[in-house]
Amino acid sequence: MSRKRVAIIGAGVCGLTSLKACLEEGLEPVCFERHDDIGGVWYYTDDVRPEQGSSVYNSLITNVSKESSCFSDFPYPRDYPAYMSCHLLHKYLHQYAETFGLSKYVRLNTKVVEVRKAEDHVTTGRWIVSSVSMAAEGSPREEMYDALMVCSGPFSRSFTPNYPGLEQYTGLTMHSREYKSPDPFRGKRVLVIGAGNSAGDVAVDVSHVASKLYLSMRDGTWIYPRLSHGGTPIDMQGSRGLLTYPLYLSMRDGTWIYPRLSHGGTPIDMLGSRGLLTYPAVINAHRRRQTLAEHVNQRNYGLETAKDMYEHVMVNDELRYSLISGKVLLRPGVTKFTRTGALLADGTKLENIDAVVFATGYVEANVSYLDDSILAKDPTKLDLYKLVFPANLPHPSMAVIGFFHVRGSIPPVAEVQARWAARVFSGRAKLPDRQTMLERVRRDREDRHRILGKHMRSKLPKIGVIPYRDEIAREIGAMPSFWKLLLKDPRLAFRVYFQPPLPAHYRLVGPHQWPGAADYTKEAVGNTFYSLRHAGKDVTSPSKMAAVSSISVLFVVVVVIVAVVIRVIM
Amino acid sequence: MSRKRVAIIGAGVCGLTSLKACLEEGLEPVCFERHDDIGGVWYYTDDVRPEQGSSVYNSLITNVSKESSCFSDFPYPRDYPAYMSCHLLHKYLHQYAETFGLSKYVRLNTKVVEVRKAEDHVTTGRWIVSSVSMAAEGSPREEMYDALMVCSGPFSRSFTPNYPGLEQYTGLTMHSREYKSPDPFRGKRVLVIGAGNSAGDVAVDVSHVASKLYLSMRDGTWIYPRLSHGGTPIDMQGSRGLLTYPLYLSMRDGTWIYPRLSHGGTPIDMLGSRGLLTYPAVINAHRRRQTLAEHVNQRNYGLETAKDMYEHVMVNDELRYSLISGKVLLRPGVTKFTRTGALLADGTKLENIDAVVFATGYVEANVSYLDDSILAKDPTKLDLYKLVFPANLPHPSMAVIGFFHVRGSIPPVAEVQARWAARVFSGRAKLPDRQTMLERVRRDREDRHRILGKHMRSKLPKIGVIPYRDEIAREIGAMPSFWKLLLKDPRLAFRVYFQPPLPAHYRLVGPHQWPGAADYTKEAVGNTFYSLRHAGKDVTSPSKMAAVSSISVLFVVVVVIVAVVIRVIM
Repeated sequence: MSRKRVAIIGAGVCGLTSLKACLEEGLEPVCFERHDDIGGVWYYTDDVRPEQGSSVYNSLITNVSKESSCFSDFPYPRDYPAYMSCHLLHKYLHQYAETFGLSKYVRLNTKVVEVRKAEDHVTTGRWIVSSVSMAAEGSPREEMYDALMVCSGPFSRSFTPNYPGLEQYTGLTMHSREYKSPDPFRGKRVLVIGAGNSAGDVAVDVSHVASKLYLSMRDGTWIYPRLSHGGTPIDMQGSRGLLTYPLYLSMRDGTWIYPRLSHGGTPIDMLGSRGLLTYPAVINAHRRRQTLAEHVNQRNYGLETAKDMYEHVMVNDELRYSLISGKVLLRPGVTKFTRTGALLADGTKLENIDAVVFATGYVEANVSYLDDSILAKDPTKLDLYKLVFPANLPHPSMAVIGFFHVRGSIPPVAEVQARWAARVFSGRAKLPDRQTMLERVRRDREDRHRILGKHMRSKLPKIGVIPYRDEIAREIGAMPSFWKLLLKDPRLAFRVYFQPPLPAHYRLVGPHQWPGAADYTKEAVGNTFYSLRHAGKDVTSPSKMAAVSSISVLFVVVVVIVAVVIRVIM
Repeated sequence: MSRKRVAIIGAGVCGLTSLKACLEEGLEPVCFERHDDIGGVWYYTDDVRPEQGSSVYNSLITNVSKESSCFSDFPYPRDYPAYMSCHLLHKYLHQYAETFGLSKYVRLNTKVVEVRKAEDHVTTGRWIVSSVSMAAEGSPREEMYDALMVCSGPFSRSFTPNYPGLEQYTGLTMHSREYKSPDPFRGKRVLVIGAGNSAGDVAVDVSHVASKLYLSMRDGTWIYPRLSHGGTPIDMQGSRGLLTYPLYLSMRDGTWIYPRLSHGGTPIDMLGSRGLLTYPAVINAHRRRQTLAEHVNQRNYGLETAKDMYEHVMVNDELRYSLISGKVLLRPGVTKFTRTGALLADGTKLENIDAVVFATGYVEANVSYLDDSILAKDPTKLDLYKLVFPANLPHPSMAVIGFFHVRGSIPPVAEVQARWAARVFSGRAKLPDRQTMLERVRRDREDRHRILGKHMRSKLPKIGVIPYRDEIAREIGAMPSFWKLLLKDPRLAFRVYFQPPLPAHYRLVGPHQWPGAADYTKEAVGNTFYSLRHAGKDVTSPSKMAAVSSISVLFVVVVVIVAVVIRVIM
């Protein structure tokens, strides 16, 4: 029997890891990339490329630290900084492609114009993929594939609210998607609109050169720093044990949608009945609240908001200082544009504004090359089993990778999705029957509405990175069991469960293990600061990793004892 | 009797507040300023002005918050940000001059070339001041003055260490004194050398445009943030009560030189014998250590140093993030320059360095217009009684303002010095006899050496801002007594002693009170965040001012009780 051919659409983070997953499973992948280089959103060009979805700016810095955001068997080089420029991340993707020989499967400058079901789709699940070369004119090339991986990303168009009077405004306007560097704003009076990551980044970036920088948001926001006490990356402070494992336990019936935890004293409706396990969740919420309040006292900074502290977050480590030193001036929302400025919700005016940057986000999920019978255009109607497999197809021959929001890093989540998909395509993993899948999709959607309610912000599902990753890893047998690990290698078990959760943990057991995973698990925490060493200073063992703070250890001990007792009793 | 004429040399912060102090005391001041505008170091020009001492760069932000750094009867406008650009501070100095009618006493473009004792100096204390107009050529103009205030600042020349091979280096070199903006460094590979405030500022500033930014320091340093929990200015967290008052008590015999407190577990040699009062000092040191460690874990960041945490400090809120995101690359000290780069202490090389900025500080105290018989050129030999009055003159007709280092803000300290000097000139305050003054100068010098020892960094004395200000204020009767205030206005007493120590406290009692001082004391803490309010958010009473944290209050209560008990018993 010939090897199954898989069409992968897009050669960004999701496409590349899908390619690798297909090769691991002995499939025959072809990856279509419409641009002239791999990397997707991380492929920076000075101008926005035609047909590009979301786009990065020159100064963009990743917001999850490198040990938490790499692929599971390919850590970032040790000497990379803990948070990386988009350029370095792009370089890493090239290294990934080179190391695993992915490039020869990528067709650059090739755009997929249509995907349709093959005539025998009902019996074979096969697809016809129509593509055109962007370089040479010509008619579309049609090919048959056994399986399809949609890796083209959920964001396609920038979104700008329909402000009254915007048409009469005569200054420069730009969406943050088009923002590349602060140069066009030198010496100008600039208004940035938005309350998300891009708004904060662009405001700080432009404030270095603008003569005046206003940041306008309709409501406040929660500013979440990358760095915590002592400058430790905040994502290296959690642990599967203390924060996430109990949370995961409490949700192992399958809801990995992040619950709205005890916000503003609201009862945790979802976890309310689970007794002991709600306690860590409350602590989790308390710690988040504390982290946020330690970074920015919202009231003092004029950022107070009733919005949910999990849903409405701006990751930013610089804005606080920019605000208190007056480099960025916070203003309420815009009600109306004038010829040269804007009216604000508090009745004041901003006059002589030379330029406006709309950091107002993206429209989600527009997969124009698929027709509605394959995948709904409306992302609220995506019937994806565990966010990957369309549940209404006759065969599991299609997977959607990376169609989610996550508080955390996308690459390791996309990777575990891709590994599962490839394993399903190769026949080594099975999906439940269609009814079960549809039932699960329905339940997930209900849960999501119930939990997030009015705070639901995006149309795409937002996942809790660890519970979701763990669940998908379990599908392919890559989720290490604490108890088995404890018997085999207690120190490793301790690291896996009580130190920061690393993508490499999914290469310790199951298929396609990485022999280096256990050793890497030892070093990873130290690698966070490796690039900061300078000669004469020995930083081989970083001091005071927050993950093993005394309170954490104490708490972990209690939880383990209680967990053991529960296991014994039940 | 005609009014006494006072010559004030320099119209910066020290000169302007001296002018005002002279007017308050009914003196007749003339202020000489060699540049074409007032403001001294805060008068920013795109190029370094001829004969300028230290110099500010375009991006400079003050490092003490506005309510702690204003003149005592002239707070910054409420809508100024808590930390200001040099431009805004310059504007404030203009507003100060305008409000108190100071400008007409300033002779701009006029350089003092010589000051000598008048023939009758021994009997009258008078001075001959020789000045030239910078605009018109001409012979010096000589005038007689009854008193002299030296306000020309202690820094005159930039300092660059004598690096081997520097003469063969072919790239651009610049001292931070000449640094004005990052523009010359766009796209370049830049090396910044230094470990102080300027080094950190320049490194971060240039990193936004450079292709590579190395920051080289021989040893680590302590990075002290402006902002603490919740983004509250760190200097608004202390209080006379909790931190400073006990410290002041312990030093009221006159040593306001900052003690080296319990650094690295070293016993506090100076306070060792004072029982109870050492405790707050230990807490003070502990809190400082904690503040520093919370901001940057020195070991993880490769900044470990055995240097004293009070003496070797870089104030910086941005460098931490620049380091961990690799925008600023930390390197050890330079041992030797090559034609195109530098060799470092760890044996590595930096190649193809396009430019080097030496942020290596200034040479101190060079008052060339005074001869040695008036004021020693060597700042370690300045015999200044309480850092203001030369102790070896026959009459108290000369004062030196602002010749000190301070952990805190200079304007309010210079102001209280100036008020004392003017009051001595007017005859309303008296100095002790010469022997007593010389004895005190000797003791201060001894204390300084004993306390700081090998950690003594600068030749100028470093003062503890509150104890020193308090002592000088007491000289003119402007230091409010806690006990008297408690009887008269308990709420005010609480604010003065248990909320952040404000310059306005020296206008509550004594000469030249400011009627608005008590009201301002109520508002000041809230003003810190005033500029951050945006409409719809009521921030009239900022939440959680750290100064009244529960632990502080508890501690304060204990201290007050103990203090009362001590008073009663003794």
